[in-house]
Amino acid sequence: MQTAIYAGTFDPMTLGHFDLVERSAGLFERVILAVVATSSKSTLFSVEERLALTREVVKPLANVVVDAFEGLLIDYARHQGVRVLIRGVRAYSDFEYEFRMALTNRKLAPEIETLFMMPSETQSYVSSSLVKEVAARGGDVSMFVAPGVQRALWSKFRGGSHDHSSE
Amino acid sequence: MQTAIYAGTFDPMTLGHFDLVERSAGLFERVILAVVATSSKSTLFSVEERLALTREVVKPLANVVVDAFEGLLIDYARHQGVRVLIRGVRAYSDFEYEFRMALTNRKLAPEIETLFMMPSETQSYVSSSLVKEVAARGGDVSMFVAPGVQRALWSKFRGGSHDHSSE
Amino acid sequence: MQTAIYAGTFDPMTLGHFDLVERSAGLFERVILAVVATSSKSTLFSVEERLALTREVVKPLANVVVDAFEGLLIDYARHQGVRVLIRGVRAYSDFEYEFRMALTNRKLAPEIETLFMMPSETQSYVSSSLVKEVAARGGDVSMFVAPGVQRALWSKFRGGSHDHSSE
Amino acid sequence: MQTAIYAGTFDPMTLGHFDLVERSAGLFERVILAVVATSSKSTLFSVEERLALTREVVKPLANVVVDAFEGLLIDYARHQGVRVLIRGVRAYSDFEYEFRMALTNRKLAPEIETLFMMPSETQSYVSSSLVKEVAARGGDVSMFVAPGVQRALWSKFRGGSHDHSSE
Amino acid sequence: MQTAIYAGTFDPMTLGHFDLVERSAGLFERVILAVVATSSKSTLFSVEERLALTREVVKPLANVVVDAFEGLLIDYARHQGVRVLIRGVRAYSDFEYEFRMALTNRKLAPEIETLFMMPSETQSYVSSSLVKEVAARGGDVSMFVAPGVQRALWSKFRGGSHDHSSE
Amino acid sequence: MQTAIYAGTFDPMTLGHFDLVERSAGLFERVILAVVATSSKSTLFSVEERLALTREVVKPLANVVVDAFEGLLIDYARHQGVRVLIRGVRAYSDFEYEFRMALTNRKLAPEIETLFMMPSETQSYVSSSLVKEVAARGGDVSMFVAPGVQRALWSKFRGGSHDHSSE
Repeated sequence: MQTAIYAGTFDPMTLGHFDLVERSAGLFERVILAVVATSSKSTLFSVEERLALTREVVKPLANVVVDAFEGLLIDYARHQGVRVLIRGVRAYSDFEYEFRMALTNRKLAPEIETLFMMPSETQSYVSSSLVKEVAARGGDVSMFVAPGVQRALWSKFRGGSHDHSSE
Repeated sequence: MQTAIYAGTFDPMTLGHFDLVERSAGLFERVILAVVATSSKSTLFSVEERLALTREVVKPLANVVVDAFEGLLIDYARHQGVRVLIRGVRAYSDFEYEFRMALTNRKLAPEIETLFMMPSETQSYVSSSLVKEVAARGGDVSMFVAPGVQRALWSKFRGGSHDHSSE
Repeated sequence: MQTAIYAGTFDPMTLGHFDLVERSAGLFERVILAVVATSSKSTLFSVEERLALTREVVKPLANVVVDAFEGLLIDYARHQGVRVLIRGVRAYSDFEYEFRMALTNRKLAPEIETLFMMPSETQSYVSSSLVKEVAARGGDVSMFVAPGVQRALWSKFRGGSHDHSSE
Repeated sequence: MQTAIYAGTFDPMTLGHFDLVERSAGLFERVILAVVATSSKSTLFSVEERLALTREVVKPLANVVVDAFEGLLIDYARHQGVRVLIRGVRAYSDFEYEFRMALTNRKLAPEIETLFMMPSETQSYVSSSLVKEVAARGGDVSMFVAPGVQRALWSKFRGGSHDHSSE
Repeated sequence: MQTAIYAGTFDPMTLGHFDLVERSAGLFERVILAVVATSSKSTLFSVEERLALTREVVKPLANVVVDAFEGLLIDYARHQGVRVLIRGVRAYSDFEYEFRMALTNRKLAPEIETLFMMPSETQSYVSSSLVKEVAARGGDVSMFVAPGVQRALWSKFRGGSHDHSSE
Repeated sequence: MQTAIYAGTFDPMTLGHFDLVERSAGLFERVILAVVATSSKSTLFSVEERLALTREVVKPLANVVVDAFEGLLIDYARHQGVRVLIRGVRAYSDFEYEFRMALTNRKLAPEIETLFMMPSETQSYVSSSLVKEVAARGGDVSMFVAPGVQRALWSKFRGGSHDHSSE
């Protein structure tokens, strides 16, 4: 039980995600933060942007590596020789979807186990979509995301003019 | 605690919405019914149409004013000097989203409080999207929306031919 | 109580759907499996494809007929002279939507009753969208759908090359 | 599918229960209203009282018979030659328990099917325990139970003095 | 809308309760904290103890008065001339019960409205029963209750020996 | 992350519990199955009986030890030097309670993490109380518990006469 995978779209990574990665990094020898390259939902950030932002956020965690993957998560996990998937559960509607996905994954790959963890209660209601919605309307998201992610959101929604105006 | 804001997309206003506005108008000196001008969801009715329909429906309530707003609801509330937001809770899945949104708003604007109210149980399952779905398939929505909204839905889904045929 | 309608998009039919149809066919003299012809959600399979796939899957059930319908389900049921609608409930989020829809249908057509049934627990987490997501990513869906549906999914996501390669 | 069983503690029967029995009686040739004789919960009314009250309430429904049973419901159903159990679902927490019980029953008796029905939304929040709580505190329960049940509750909580005072 | 009632068993009052009273006191001119004198659940603290502990906790809030009541909450509210009831919602299972209770109260007293508020997310999972369970097993509850309540719990579960040992 | 604790009342152990222990034993070097010695709920089996039954059931799992504990679980975990608690989540109402308990434990012992796992879907609805209810009414529980537990239930509810009658 040395390596665990924490997968997601991370569009963008929130402090709730970071809280979970940090907890996982404290329990496992190595954590692979696996960014979904292609997604059924269209993303705000490209996979390259999401990889770069995520790498910057988790830099302080020495035993966390960031990677991207395509196809099924269980195929990626098998390829990496990993048997443990970490999922965060924030609330009920979350759990519903997570429950179905984990049971489906178990049917497809019985040797892989999904472990659920709770984020800190101060981050438990934060989601990427809420963060994007607040940022799109000009709200302050500094309490929900890391500074680099905040700047990236600012650039997306303000056409990059922020960087210039601060020169 | 003299003024409260009841915000939403109102695409279109249902009798469930009206029930909540009426209850709020009985508790507060003044209620601002705030129509979200821009929405992440594409709306059936334009913001002008939604304002007009909503104004017509709440006309009997003397202490209710209808307004549109852009950006974050808490910024609008601050601008109006209002500290109370009213939200309806119809059922569980509702509450989940409402809970997250209210906690996010509280983080962004701690001085503003969200109060949740229940609509009448006879309207508790009605939603704008259900109403649109029924109307789009030719169903009778007179039990779920006010007459003016019903006519507007009819025009949308029947290409306005209804008005002519009744001449 | 001789005939019941089991309606859905069936995009595509899963073994969870089949489980419910089989149970219904054991309780009612006749079951109409009613495929929604037009849907607010865009479907992967055309209505003709969904009819063909569904007919193939339920062929072993002598008292099940497959049909397509447009408009409101309750109008279709009235037209068929049927007073019982069958719905499956897999889990909570399901039930929420089903609950609202059933109460709306009851308001529109008080003489029609909705009966809820549970699929087998081994199929209770399977949904058409999960199946499509797994198939789109190259996963094996043979445990979730009938062989004909599996081939159809394969053709959709592999451009039909599968049929040629097996010649 | 001629006979269905609707079982419960009925301590006491509410108008929500009656609503469900009435709907069932409209769908099935015969409905057995099966009163649980022994219960893990201690009841306010004895099984004889519950039988008498229930019989009085359902008297207008010609095809409903009231009976008591001990032991497992599925054993009673088998003994009666009945394959359909009716359960009401009022809300989420209900459904959770009902779901587990129905899956357990299916494991014990695969030939018996549980069908769930929704009570009228105007009765959907009424429960026997809520009714007893309101009555115990001197509240008016005439909107939630039949007149005979109301008198019985009155006698229980007022020591039968009601009958004398009305002489 | 000058006075609101916040009722409960308060066995004992938690910091989650206090958070809600404080929020209510900021919105309403006067808040009556109404302690249920008799309860269907047997309480750890007598009503006198609960009144004393609660009074001590809310002393800093000038516009909050503490009172006890018997019978139905709506009868107490009517007697006090109050039209607003405040309820906290911590999570789903909470809301379910609250929803039913509020709809029942509305049926019994249509002129009285129930407003739901959310406690701070850092207190959202605290409940009186959890606090009692932790205290009974010798755990530290200083993060969940006020100092006076902590001392009272200590006395209950340690036979008052704590006070002597600290002399 | 070599040792994990899976705690519970185990009154009695079900196949759902066993499924979780088996999964945990496959992921961790050592699993302590910790039986709650004293419980707020009165138990059917004494702690000695529960220990004996549980030990018999998990005998095939070489890296699982069975122990009893009093007081707070986190105090026991600290005493054992264990930082990981395993909890099963069967469904929504479960998760609600588990969520609160885990957040409370985290507040009391931030260095201890709770990991949630799903039992097999074929065991997901089984609970100790359901098993006891079925057994008390004379039902067959062989699909829900191990043979030894089944015999123990039989003895409890049939006064031990079963052992004699089989001689």
